[in-house]
Amino acid sequence: MLFHVTMDVTIPRDLPAQERADILAREKAYSQDLQRRGKWRHIWRVAGQYANVSIFDVQDNAELHDILSGLPLFPFMDIAVTPLLRHPSAIRDDDT
Amino acid sequence: MLFHVTMDVTIPRDLPAQERADILAREKAYSQDLQRRGKWRHIWRVAGQYANVSIFDVQDNAELHDILSGLPLFPFMDIAVTPLLRHPSAIRDDDT
Amino acid sequence: MLFHVTMDVTIPRDLPAQERADILAREKAYSQDLQRRGKWRHIWRVAGQYANVSIFDVQDNAELHDILSGLPLFPFMDIAVTPLLRHPSAIRDDDT
Amino acid sequence: MLFHVTMDVTIPRDLPAQERADILAREKAYSQDLQRRGKWRHIWRVAGQYANVSIFDVQDNAELHDILSGLPLFPFMDIAVTPLLRHPSAIRDDDT
Amino acid sequence: MLFHVTMDVTIPRDLPAQERADILAREKAYSQDLQRRGKWRHIWRVAGQYANVSIFDVQDNAELHDILSGLPLFPFMDIAVTPLLRHPSAIRDDDT
Amino acid sequence: MLFHVTMDVTIPRDLPAQERADILAREKAYSQDLQRRGKWRHIWRVAGQYANVSIFDVQDNAELHDILSGLPLFPFMDIAVTPLLRHPSAIRDDDT
Amino acid sequence: MLFHVTMDVTIPRDLPAQERADILAREKAYSQDLQRRGKWRHIWRVAGQYANVSIFDVQDNAELHDILSGLPLFPFMDIAVTPLLRHPSAIRDDDT
Amino acid sequence: MLFHVTMDVTIPRDLPAQERADILAREKAYSQDLQRRGKWRHIWRVAGQYANVSIFDVQDNAELHDILSGLPLFPFMDIAVTPLLRHPSAIRDDDT
Amino acid sequence: MLFHVTMDVTIPRDLPAQERADILAREKAYSQDLQRRGKWRHIWRVAGQYANVSIFDVQDNAELHDILSGLPLFPFMDIAVTPLLRHPSAIRDDDT
Amino acid sequence: MLFHVTMDVTIPRDLPAQERADILAREKAYSQDLQRRGKWRHIWRVAGQYANVSIFDVQDNAELHDILSGLPLFPFMDIAVTPLLRHPSAIRDDDT
Repeated sequence: MLFHVTMDVTIPRDLPAQERADILAREKAYSQDLQRRGKWRHIWRVAGQYANVSIFDVQDNAELHDILSGLPLFPFMDIAVTPLLRHPSAIRDDDT
Repeated sequence: MLFHVTMDVTIPRDLPAQERADILAREKAYSQDLQRRGKWRHIWRVAGQYANVSIFDVQDNAELHDILSGLPLFPFMDIAVTPLLRHPSAIRDDDT
Repeated sequence: MLFHVTMDVTIPRDLPAQERADILAREKAYSQDLQRRGKWRHIWRVAGQYANVSIFDVQDNAELHDILSGLPLFPFMDIAVTPLLRHPSAIRDDDT
Repeated sequence: MLFHVTMDVTIPRDLPAQERADILAREKAYSQDLQRRGKWRHIWRVAGQYANVSIFDVQDNAELHDILSGLPLFPFMDIAVTPLLRHPSAIRDDDT
Repeated sequence: MLFHVTMDVTIPRDLPAQERADILAREKAYSQDLQRRGKWRHIWRVAGQYANVSIFDVQDNAELHDILSGLPLFPFMDIAVTPLLRHPSAIRDDDT
Repeated sequence: MLFHVTMDVTIPRDLPAQERADILAREKAYSQDLQRRGKWRHIWRVAGQYANVSIFDVQDNAELHDILSGLPLFPFMDIAVTPLLRHPSAIRDDDT
Repeated sequence: MLFHVTMDVTIPRDLPAQERADILAREKAYSQDLQRRGKWRHIWRVAGQYANVSIFDVQDNAELHDILSGLPLFPFMDIAVTPLLRHPSAIRDDDT
Repeated sequence: MLFHVTMDVTIPRDLPAQERADILAREKAYSQDLQRRGKWRHIWRVAGQYANVSIFDVQDNAELHDILSGLPLFPFMDIAVTPLLRHPSAIRDDDT
Repeated sequence: MLFHVTMDVTIPRDLPAQERADILAREKAYSQDLQRRGKWRHIWRVAGQYANVSIFDVQDNAELHDILSGLPLFPFMDIAVTPLLRHPSAIRDDDT
Repeated sequence: MLFHVTMDVTIPRDLPAQERADILAREKAYSQDLQRRGKWRHIWRVAGQYANVSIFDVQDNAELHDILSGLPLFPFMDIAVTPLLRHPSAIRDDDT
């Protein structure tokens, strides 16, 4: 089941540099693990923004929430969730 | 080059039924042709809305505009365009 | 899987009275059938508005969209969908 | 009498960990006590957000305000209140 | 129980003059009857607007909705409802 | 001359407890004095909010501003002012 | 007593040309009469808009409402009212 | 050439009292000097707000920007600029 | 003197085809004449929108308003005006 | 390929003066280098704002993002990006 998620990131200026670096490293590993497992189907950077647009493929709302609330950057993100489904005009098998 | 596009559709009530059917048939053919040619990379329906979220892969802004302004439903759509790029954490080859 | 849905209704003034009555009767039957089948878990009127707040319990986003886009009043509604899940402090069995 | 309440939580980063844990424990106990007494009829988590949607069943506006302003997390919440009533199409006895 | 209600009125230009006059006369009688019965506690015009701010004193949300949805001008109004209660600093007996 | 005023209060977390208590006590005395003198005609709490809705009866805009800018909580308030007048359907003598 | 008023005008396309011309002529005469009497202190066009910014000098809210609701273009205007007063740094006698 | 400017002021709580007093004194002198020179044609306080509405008469956009960015309170202001011109119904010589 | 102007166009569906074609032809000629005379310095299409972003170089606000209100499409446009000036970091002679 | 970019700057009050001066100097050099290379085609100051409107001419979205995210002031900017293309009525060669 697909969800469209936008994540806008605002890291506070007073976050210590090491803590910041640690969070970003964990965020990247967390994201790439979910991408490999097929849960995080797409991720794109938004031009000119510290933000991304992502597509998640999860079993249900609860799994989506577990993934999002577990993001190392979650406390610093403004997140918007939109439930998606197959479009009647879609021809790609994986747009489902 | 990737663009995120949302299309919200509002078809006027007084559009004659045949004209409406014709436009929708042409819209579907137009979309599927662009999907086959790889220009319209993804299209998803938004749950509960007469709307879609799409990803386009075009050469430049001009090609994107030609495609969008040529949509049979263009006069009845509210469109928002967001330029995307590869995210530094992306692992899929085709998220570019 | 639970979804929070708000529906704001605006019926055009020029809709013929009989057509309006027919749509409202079909809307009521449609809603009550889904309530009986457990898909439409809750429905409340918003005080002072021609609007409702509802909770749906469906298998996935696609089933939710089928239900909402099939509403007889769908062309006259402004709909907002929010995915829900069990709250960690919930004690009722059916808040899931 | 039913009210729809949304609560968005933003806990300041500089709240000491112990104070934060205490508030969250008291919040949970407070909520569950009201749920057991039938005042807090439903509570759901919003997917991807530190937020909930709740339904309260109270005697009047004053009781609702007492409950909400007494929430241990009240100083950290953005709250929206919507008065509800039984929908004419409702079939469940407890949607009142 | 008190509610703050704002009503913004937009009467369509094509409403026949006689129908318009009838609705306005019924609206005035409807409002004044409720004022006499103590349900419609206050009504003020907003300067420069075809709008009013009102205070209602009703038994519950359902009675408020019955009153508002019964307004002859209801189909032409944009209504906002805010539940009120006695302020801890209030000294007037009837601000309750 | 009547004015509708909404006041939303946000007291900073780092305001010392004694200073906070002093301000709140002065605010209450200030409000009750103006209520007794008939300047602050009504004050109601908004359910679920640290906010009030008030009606002021003053000689002119300057007097209203003097009163509002003199509120002990003024630096912590978000204030909105709407000029009111007697509604043509009003029957109460004091809705003027 | 001074009020800042913005007026945005939208004249419907289907207003007959003669009716439109009559309304505009009456609007101009109405405005200039009030300017001569000192009630309508200033009026400026907003660049690029069919809109104006005006300053009114009236006795009270009721007089302001009488003037605004009597504008021949009132049914076609979106009006916003802001109460003003003398600024403590003002040096002009007539900024009061 | 006339410009309509609104200035909303938010002075941070932690600004030292002396620095605050100095800035306010310089702001007043700066404003009154420009009023005397005819550049700052009008200034009014907005009732209930730490804000003003002003009319500037300058040679061009650059002069307007020099004046506004030189305001001692500029770092603490939220400013909105609207270009104005003579209204075709204006009768005052100085509404130009 | 430079102004940034955005123009969003919405042509009504019921505008006769010939009238529409005439207006568009006049709009193009009007725009190109002003471009040749250096008044309309830049015009760009916004991707995916029936809209443009333009830069005007005019003597004052009045000339800008004359140009904009004279646009054949003016009745069908939503226009936003922003006054610009030379940026201190600009190096191009004609960014003034 | 052209992009319209607005940048609103908010420099925190507690940024040390030397760090602020360094960032501003680097920002100016960065911008002027890109202007000389033809990437940053235009930059204008917005009157009354610490903000600019710019036109970028880049190869693709990725290059635009590299440029914007590399701005020394990027952490203190609110940026909005709009993709542009040649307008069918444009006559200037360099509006492409």
